Amino acid sequence: MVRGRITRLAVSDVRFPTSLGGHGSDAMHPDPDYSAAYVVIETDASDGLKGYGLTFTLGKGTEVVVCAVNALSSHVVNKDLEEIVSNFRGFYRELTSDGQLRWIGPEKGAVHLATAAVLNAVWDLWAKQEGKVMYLELNEILQNGLIGKKEREEQMLKHGYPAYTTSCAWLGYPDHDLPLIANVSRFKVKVGADLQDDIRRCRLIREMIGPDKTLMLDANQRWEVKEAIEWVTKLAEFKPLWIEEPTSPDDILGHAAISKALVPLGIGVATGEQCHNRVIFKQLLQAKALSYLQIDSCRLGSVNENLSVLLMAKKFQIPVCPHAGGVGLCELVQHLIIFDYISVSGSLENRMCEYVDHLHEHFRYPVVIKKASYVPPQDAGYSTEMKEDSARKYQFPQGEIWQKLLSKS
Amino acid sequence: MVRGRITRLAVSDVRFPTSLGGHGSDAMHPDPDYSAAYVVIETDASDGLKGYGLTFTLGKGTEVVVCAVNALSSHVVNKDLEEIVSNFRGFYRELTSDGQLRWIGPEKGAVHLATAAVLNAVWDLWAKQEGKVMYLELNEILQNGLIGKKEREEQMLKHGYPAYTTSCAWLGYPDHDLPLIANVSRFKVKVGADLQDDIRRCRLIREMIGPDKTLMLDANQRWEVKEAIEWVTKLAEFKPLWIEEPTSPDDILGHAAISKALVPLGIGVATGEQCHNRVIFKQLLQAKALSYLQIDSCRLGSVNENLSVLLMAKKFQIPVCPHAGGVGLCELVQHLIIFDYISVSGSLENRMCEYVDHLHEHFRYPVVIKKASYVPPQDAGYSTEMKEDSARKYQFPQGEIWQKLLSKS
Repeated sequence: MVRGRITRLAVSDVRFPTSLGGHGSDAMHPDPDYSAAYVVIETDASDGLKGYGLTFTLGKGTEVVVCAVNALSSHVVNKDLEEIVSNFRGFYRELTSDGQLRWIGPEKGAVHLATAAVLNAVWDLWAKQEGKVMYLELNEILQNGLIGKKEREEQMLKHGYPAYTTSCAWLGYPDHDLPLIANVSRFKVKVGADLQDDIRRCRLIREMIGPDKTLMLDANQRWEVKEAIEWVTKLAEFKPLWIEEPTSPDDILGHAAISKALVPLGIGVATGEQCHNRVIFKQLLQAKALSYLQIDSCRLGSVNENLSVLLMAKKFQIPVCPHAGGVGLCELVQHLIIFDYISVSGSLENRMCEYVDHLHEHFRYPVVIKKASYVPPQDAGYSTEMKEDSARKYQFPQGEIWQKLLSKS
Repeated sequence: MVRGRITRLAVSDVRFPTSLGGHGSDAMHPDPDYSAAYVVIETDASDGLKGYGLTFTLGKGTEVVVCAVNALSSHVVNKDLEEIVSNFRGFYRELTSDGQLRWIGPEKGAVHLATAAVLNAVWDLWAKQEGKVMYLELNEILQNGLIGKKEREEQMLKHGYPAYTTSCAWLGYPDHDLPLIANVSRFKVKVGADLQDDIRRCRLIREMIGPDKTLMLDANQRWEVKEAIEWVTKLAEFKPLWIEEPTSPDDILGHAAISKALVPLGIGVATGEQCHNRVIFKQLLQAKALSYLQIDSCRLGSVNENLSVLLMAKKFQIPVCPHAGGVGLCELVQHLIIFDYISVSGSLENRMCEYVDHLHEHFRYPVVIKKASYVPPQDAGYSTEMKEDSARKYQFPQGEIWQKLLSKS
C-alpha cells in the first residue's frame, strides 16, 4: 500500500500577526505571533499525494526551527516511505540520534520541534496513502488494545470529544472583550502576572459562569515553587480544578512539591505543553508531580513519542488533557486524544481537550466543534495541511501580509 | 570603567574536521566535527576592544545555533555595556525570556547554546575593558566569599588546578593509538558500545596505569537505567571512580536510582555536560542523583548560570569537576573552576577538571598545563578569542580547509 521515494522536503516560516490583537498572550508571552515551521514532503509516486507537517512557534525563532528542519532533511530525502514505516522506531532514532546534531538537543529545543514537524508530515503522508483518517489508522496499529473499541468509536462519532476553551481570558484582553462561548462548561484563565488582578479576573469569570462550571488556571511557568503554592492558595476560593504550568517545565521535583501542597485545597497540577520529551513525562508520573497530563502534538516527536506518553499515562492512571490552540495544534491533537479514548484510556472521566477558536480558517481540514466537543475528523491524513493561499500570504517575511506590516513599521 | 555601546554582533560557523581522525568519538557520537558558533562583539568605544564568545557544537547543527544567535542579537546590539553589566541579571532574563523566542527553548537546546555564546562574548569584553583575567574578575564580584582567598590564589599560581584527561581512550581510537600523557594520574575511558570490548579496554588501560591511578568511565548516555546498573557492575573490578552520563541527561530520577545502586560498589555517578540548565542541576542535587557535578561553560548560560550551579553544589557539598575538551571548553572553564576553588568551594578534595589535548593551537590564549594541572591564565578576558587565521580557514563551508575537503567528497 505504502509507496514512493521521498524526493523533496520543503519548509517555510509561516507567521500570523496575532500579537496585534493580544491573542494568545499570557504571563510569560506578552506578544506572540502564532506561527509554524511548515513542512511539505513529496514523493515520486504517481498518486501525487503530499505529506504536510508543522510545529507550532511564537514568531521570532521560527527561522531557527526552519534551519533545524533543513539540517534534518538529509535523513528524510531519498528514503522510501515503505522503508520508514516498516521500521518507524529506527527512523525516529535516526532523526533524534544523529551523532552531530544531537549535541544541540538532545531531543529538546529547536531540533526536537523540527523533528516533530518532519515526522508529522510523514504521518500525514502515510495516512493519506492509506486513505485513512489518522486516529483510525492509529486504532488499527494498536491492534491489541482495549475491548469495546467499536462502541467508543461510535460514541465519538455521535458525541465527540469534550473540549474546553482558553480564549475567554487571554491576559492581553480588556475585561469587556472576555467572550463566553455558548455551550462550553469548562473555562481556563491565564494568571500569574499580578495577584490582585488575578483575584479580580477570577471573581469576574466565576460570577459569569456560575458555581457549577469548571474553571482552570494557567500560570505559564511564572512562579518559583514556594510562590506558586502561596499564590494558588489565594485563588483557591474560586474553586479551580487545576493550576497549569505553575513553574519551570523542567522542575519535576518542584511540580511534585506543589502537587503535594495543593492536595488539601482540592486543586490538581496540570503540565506538559513545554515538557520537551518522554523522559520528562516519565519522571513527572514517577514523582506524582501532576494530576492532569497535557501532551503537545508538536513539541513531542510527533505521533511516535506522543504514543509512548499516552501509554505511560495509562499505566499511571493519569488523565491526558492535551494542550491545543496555537497554529494547528487542535487539528493534530484531536486525532491523538480520540485515539487515546478509543484504544488506550477507554475513559472520559476527568478528561477534556483544549480548544481555542482562532486560525482554523487557514487549514484545509479545520476542526469541527459541536456542543463543546470535538467532532471526529473525516478526511484522510493528519489534518495538517494548510490552505495554499494562507501558507503563501503569511510566509515570513516575503508573504504579502508581512510585506504590508513591515512596510508600516 | 565599563564603556561603549555595542555596535555590532557577528557570528560564524567554525568547524574543525576532527571526525577524520576519530577524535572525540564515543558511544553516541561516532563522527563529531568539533565546532563552534563563534561570536564577536564590537563597541563604539575608542579602546577598540572586542568581546569573543563561543559555544561548542559537533558539526552539523552549528548553523542552527548560528541562526539562534542572530535571533538573539537584537537584545544585544545598541545596548550600552554599562547598562548590561549594571543589571546583568536583568539582561540574562531578557535573553532567556524573550516572549516569542522562549517557546523554542525555554533555556534549552539551540537557543540556550546561543545564549551562552553571546554572554560569553559579553563577559570577555567586560573583563578585557577592566584589564582583568576573568577568574580574578569573578573573585572580586563575589566579595563576601570564603576567608583564605589570598592563600588559595597563591596556591593556584604555584600549583595550578588538577586536570584529568580523556584523550587516552576515545572510542574511535585503535588500541595502539591509546596515548598516555606523562604526569597525569587520572584517566577517563569511553564505554557503552560493547560490553566485551569495554572489559578488554578497561583491563588494558588499568594495566597500563597501574592500580593506584584514578580511572573514570564515560557512557555518554548510552544506557537505560537498569542496563546502566548491570553494565557498570560488570566493570566494577577495574575500580572506576565514577560512571559518567550513564543514561539520558533528562532523567534525574533515573540517575538517582543508578547512584543508589552503585553505592555498594564504591562507584559514583557524574553528569552535567548535557544538563541544559540550572533547574536540572537543582533537581540532580535534591534527588542525590550524582556524586560529581560536571558543569559545561558553553551549555549553561555563560558565567551567570554557571555561578548559580557552583553555589548550589557548594550548598549540597558535591564536588564540581567540569566537562571540558571540545572547542575552547578548557580555555573557558579553567576560569570558572579556579574561581570555584578560590571563592566558593575552597577545596580540592575529589575535584579535578577535564582536559583534552587538542585544538588549543587555534586560540590566542591557549590553556597551559603543567604537571597535570591547569596553570592559571594571565591575560585579560575570558580566553575565548580564536586566532583570526583559524577562525577564517575553518569557517564552514566557505573557509579554505572546508573548500578543499568538500571538493574531494
